Amino acid sequence: MAYNLLKGKRGIIFGPLDDKSIAWKVAERAHEEGARFTLSNTQTAIRFGTISELSERTGSEVIAADATSVQDVEQVFRRSMEVLGGKVDFVLHSIGMSLNVRKGRKYDDLDYGYFMKTMDISAFSFHKMLQVARKMDAISEWGSVVALSYVAAQRTLFRYNDMADAKAALESIARSFGYIYGRDKKIRVNTISQSPTMTTAGSGVKGIDNLIDFTDRMSPLGNATADECADYCVTLFSDLTRKVTMQNLFHDGGFSSMGMSLKAMMMYNRSLECKDCLDPDDPELLKSLDD
Amino acid sequence: MAYNLLKGKRGIIFGPLDDKSIAWKVAERAHEEGARFTLSNTQTAIRFGTISELSERTGSEVIAADATSVQDVEQVFRRSMEVLGGKVDFVLHSIGMSLNVRKGRKYDDLDYGYFMKTMDISAFSFHKMLQVARKMDAISEWGSVVALSYVAAQRTLFRYNDMADAKAALESIARSFGYIYGRDKKIRVNTISQSPTMTTAGSGVKGIDNLIDFTDRMSPLGNATADECADYCVTLFSDLTRKVTMQNLFHDGGFSSMGMSLKAMMMYNRSLECKDCLDPDDPELLKSLDD
Amino acid sequence: MAYNLLKGKRGIIFGPLDDKSIAWKVAERAHEEGARFTLSNTQTAIRFGTISELSERTGSEVIAADATSVQDVEQVFRRSMEVLGGKVDFVLHSIGMSLNVRKGRKYDDLDYGYFMKTMDISAFSFHKMLQVARKMDAISEWGSVVALSYVAAQRTLFRYNDMADAKAALESIARSFGYIYGRDKKIRVNTISQSPTMTTAGSGVKGIDNLIDFTDRMSPLGNATADECADYCVTLFSDLTRKVTMQNLFHDGGFSSMGMSLKAMMMYNRSLECKDCLDPDDPELLKSLDD
Amino acid sequence: MAYNLLKGKRGIIFGPLDDKSIAWKVAERAHEEGARFTLSNTQTAIRFGTISELSERTGSEVIAADATSVQDVEQVFRRSMEVLGGKVDFVLHSIGMSLNVRKGRKYDDLDYGYFMKTMDISAFSFHKMLQVARKMDAISEWGSVVALSYVAAQRTLFRYNDMADAKAALESIARSFGYIYGRDKKIRVNTISQSPTMTTAGSGVKGIDNLIDFTDRMSPLGNATADECADYCVTLFSDLTRKVTMQNLFHDGGFSSMGMSLKAMMMYNRSLECKDCLDPDDPELLKSLDD
Repeated sequence: MAYNLLKGKRGIIFGPLDDKSIAWKVAERAHEEGARFTLSNTQTAIRFGTISELSERTGSEVIAADATSVQDVEQVFRRSMEVLGGKVDFVLHSIGMSLNVRKGRKYDDLDYGYFMKTMDISAFSFHKMLQVARKMDAISEWGSVVALSYVAAQRTLFRYNDMADAKAALESIARSFGYIYGRDKKIRVNTISQSPTMTTAGSGVKGIDNLIDFTDRMSPLGNATADECADYCVTLFSDLTRKVTMQNLFHDGGFSSMGMSLKAMMMYNRSLECKDCLDPDDPELLKSLDD
Repeated sequence: MAYNLLKGKRGIIFGPLDDKSIAWKVAERAHEEGARFTLSNTQTAIRFGTISELSERTGSEVIAADATSVQDVEQVFRRSMEVLGGKVDFVLHSIGMSLNVRKGRKYDDLDYGYFMKTMDISAFSFHKMLQVARKMDAISEWGSVVALSYVAAQRTLFRYNDMADAKAALESIARSFGYIYGRDKKIRVNTISQSPTMTTAGSGVKGIDNLIDFTDRMSPLGNATADECADYCVTLFSDLTRKVTMQNLFHDGGFSSMGMSLKAMMMYNRSLECKDCLDPDDPELLKSLDD
Repeated sequence: MAYNLLKGKRGIIFGPLDDKSIAWKVAERAHEEGARFTLSNTQTAIRFGTISELSERTGSEVIAADATSVQDVEQVFRRSMEVLGGKVDFVLHSIGMSLNVRKGRKYDDLDYGYFMKTMDISAFSFHKMLQVARKMDAISEWGSVVALSYVAAQRTLFRYNDMADAKAALESIARSFGYIYGRDKKIRVNTISQSPTMTTAGSGVKGIDNLIDFTDRMSPLGNATADECADYCVTLFSDLTRKVTMQNLFHDGGFSSMGMSLKAMMMYNRSLECKDCLDPDDPELLKSLDD
Repeated sequence: MAYNLLKGKRGIIFGPLDDKSIAWKVAERAHEEGARFTLSNTQTAIRFGTISELSERTGSEVIAADATSVQDVEQVFRRSMEVLGGKVDFVLHSIGMSLNVRKGRKYDDLDYGYFMKTMDISAFSFHKMLQVARKMDAISEWGSVVALSYVAAQRTLFRYNDMADAKAALESIARSFGYIYGRDKKIRVNTISQSPTMTTAGSGVKGIDNLIDFTDRMSPLGNATADECADYCVTLFSDLTRKVTMQNLFHDGGFSSMGMSLKAMMMYNRSLECKDCLDPDDPELLKSLDD
C-alpha cells in the first residue's frame, strides 16, 4: 500500500546489490511512495549484483562510485542533482565491509590496514557523503539522511569483529554531523539499528542462521525484515519526522530491549536437557565455532 | 497535508485538554489521516478544557474516565469498541500529574501519599490501559500503543521532581508490557520522549520559558512542537513502523544527543560577561529559583 | 585481604538476611575494611534469617525496621548515630520484594495494590531513607549511598514482572536525589546493577538456575558473585570514588555489554541440534515455563 | 592516604606529559599504592614535557614509543616485563590527538588523512596495545586495562570535532576486546569518561574555560579533577573490581546524568536578563565562537 509520503521528493540510495538488499527494498518503497532517486554502488557490486533491474523498475539512474572516494561521492551528488533536477531530499547509506572478517582475521589478530579500510568503507564514507553534500549544498532544507547500523555498536557479538567498532563510529558520525547539519540547514541525520537480515552479504557469514534464530526468539515481534525496514525508512524520509535527529533508532522487533524471552529460554533449556548433544565446554568445539 | 496513513484505523486518545495539548494535536492529525477514535479525559479536565470542540471537529465521542480506575478504563475500551465498531488499532497515553509539584513540595520533602498518586496517575495508568486492553482483547493484531514521556526519565532536571521517577517507570512499563503484548498479539508499545512543550499544564510551571529557551538553543533543529509530535505519532500508529517496539523514541530536535551547542554556549558566555547581572552564587537567589 | 579502606567510617546496611545475602557480604567486607555500622531488616526477616550471627561477628547492632515506614527509617538513622557516635558515611539499600511475583500474578494480570507495594518496598523505601537522612542531616559530607539494582531496569526478562518497573524507579530515584544530595551536601548516590545472584530470596524463583547458566555463559568473566559485589561496594563507599554519582554501575562480568557470546551460542546451537528434546514451539510447554 | 591497594602489582602507564596530566596523577597514586610500573609516551612528548621528573619520583623507567606503531608497543610490553620482572597487572591508555582540531579544520571540512590519524592515535592505539599484550601474553589473569574517554562519545559538543568519533570507537574497542580478553584470560577492559580537565593539552582549546564553568555548575559534585580520576583508576586496577568489564564509567561529578541544574540555569537566566551583552543571535559572533 502506498501513501504518497515521498511525493515530489528526490533522493540518493547508496548500497543496493540485489533484491535481498535493504537498500533495494528502500528503493522499491521510495518509488511506490512517489520519490525519484539515483542509485549508487561500486563498479564491482554493479557487475556482481542485479542493480540494473532495480534501475529499470524504478526509473533510476545508477551511478558507479567508490564511497570512500571524495571525488566519486561528489560525482554522485552532482550527477544526481542534474538527473533529478535539483537538490536531494533524502540519502540512504547502506554500506559496510570488513576485510578482517572476509579474510578470517579474528579480533585479537586484526590486520590494521584492513581495520582502517573497515572504518573508511563502513563509517568514514558516511562522513564523506555528508561533508560533500554540505559543501555542495546538495540537500534541501528539512532533508533526511539515514545510515543502517547494528546493535553490535552497543553490545558485543562474537565474530562481528571490527565491524562493531565501525558501526559505533558510524553512529557517532551521525550525531556529530547531525548537530551541524541540523543547526545550519535543518537537515536531520539518523541511524537505524536493524535486526540481523539475510542479505546476500550477510548470508555468507558463518553461523548467521543460528544467530538469527536466537534474535528471532528473543524479539517479541520477531526479527524485522528488509521490507519492514524499507517501510520504516520511508517514514524517516517523510515530512512527518522532521524533529527526529541524531538518534540511533532500533528497528528490531524489540530485541534491543530484551534481557531474556520465554521462547529463547525454552530453546536454551532444551540444550541443558539434551543428552546426546556435544559437550558445550569442549574447547575444540568452541574454537571451531569461533573461526 | 494528509496521506491516509490511518485510513480505516480505530483508536483511543487519552489526555486532550485544549488546543495546546499534544493529545489534541494527535487527534486532529489522526482525523486528517483517516482514523476514527474516541477521546478520554477526567470529568474535571472535560469541564475545565474545551474538549467538546475537538469532539465535534473530529466526530469523536468523549468518554469521561479517571485513568487510575480500572473500571473506568474498562468502560473506555468497551464503549470505544461499541462506538467504533470493533477493536482499536492505536492508543495514545498523554497523562501525567504530580501533586508534589502542584503543592510545592520539593524532591527532598515529598509527601509519600502524593508520590504514590504521581506514580498511579502518570505511570500505573498506562499499565492499567494495557492490562485492561489485553484482558478484553481490545486491540487488533499489529496495533500500536504510545505514551508520552520526557528526557527527565534519564537525566535530572531540577524542579521536575517526582515526575522524573514516574516517567522512568512509565518507560519501563512500555518495555515490560511491550514484551508480552508483542509476543502474544503482535502489538507494539513505545514511548515518545518529547521536547518540553508549552501546553496549558506546562505553562504554569515556574521558569519553564527559560528552560525552553535553553533546550531550543541546545537542539540543532530547535524544540519539537506539539504539531510535529502529532505527525510523529501518526507514523508510529501507521503500518510502516510495525517492528518498532519497547523503544523510547526521542522527538526533541536532537537535544538528547547534545552535550553543548554553539548557540547555548553563546548565551552562557554572555552571562559570564554580564557586569550588571545578579550574583550567580548568591544562595538566596538560588533558593528562590529552586522554589 | 583488607586495606583499611573504610577505617573510621560509619554506616548502615539495610537488607541482610543470611549468609547468602549480598548485604551480609557487604557487612563482612566493610567490617574487615575497618568500618563500624548498624544492620537493619524487618522483624520477620530477623526472625527468619540468621542476622544475629552477623551482628555478633561484626559487633553491629541490629535495628528492626519496616523500610516503607518513615518513622521506622528515622529510628534507624537516629539509633545508628547514637550507637556509632556520629553521622554515617555510607548506606546500603538491598531491599526488594514483589507480592505479584510471590503470589504468581503475571505481568498482564497484576494486582495494583501489590504493584504499589512492590514500588513502595523496592523503590520508595530508597527515597524515604534519603529524605529522612537529608532532613536529619544524618550523612557526612562526601558520604556514599548505594542501592542494588538489576539489568531488568533496562531490558525485559520474562518473569521478572513488576520488579523491573520498581528497579527502573529505584535507579531514577538515585539520579533525582543524587542531584540534590550532591549539590547540597557532597553526598553521592549510585546503584549497582548486579548479576543474578543465588540468594535465599532469589533461589525460590522458578527457573533461575537456567537463567544463571545463560548469563554466566554470556558474561566473559562469568556472573559476579555476592562476595565480589561486596568488594565493589567497598570501593564505592571509600574515599577513592568521590566524584562518581547518579550512576547505575554494572557489576556483571560484562553481561550488560554482550549481544552474543561464543559459549552461549554453543549452548543455543546444541538445542537446535537436539533430536529428542521437547518441541520448543509447543504452546503448552511455553505456557508452563511462563507460570 | 594510601591503602596498599596495588601492592605487588606491575603496570604500564601510557600518556603522562607533565604534572597536569591525568596519567601523571595515576602514576603518582599507583606508586603510593605500592605498584611498580613503566611510563610511556612519544619522543616528542618526552622532550616537551617533564616526564623524567615523574620517572625519578616513582622509580619508573620511561619507554619512548609511538602508540600507533605495533613494533613500538611490542617493545614497551617487552621492556616492561623485563624491568618489572613479569607480566603486568594493569595498563592505562591516556592518549588522544586530532590534527583536524589542531589545524583548525571544522567538522564539516575534515581532512580525511587527519581523520584517519585521529582514529589511529586515539582509538586504534588502544586496540594495538590489547592485541600486542594478548599475543605476547603480557597481562596477568585478572589484570585490568583502562582507557580515558569523554562524554562526547555519546553527546555532541561543538568544537570537539572528530575526537568524538574516535572516543566512540575507543569505547567500542574496550567492549569488543573486553569480551575476548575476559573470556580467554579473565582480564577486564573499561573506559573512564572523565570530566573536562585542564591538562596542558586541553588548556590550549579555545573556550574550554567557559565550557568547564558550565559542566562544573551542571554537575552536582562539580567537575572531577585529575587527582580524583587517579583515585578512581586505582580502584579499577585493584582486586576489588574484578567483575567490572566492558563498561564506560562516568567519573564526572554527575554531569552525564544531568538535564539541567539550578546553578547552570541561574547562569543561563542571567544571560537572558543581560542588557549590555552582545546579541546572542548575531551570526558573526556565533561564527567567531565556532572557529
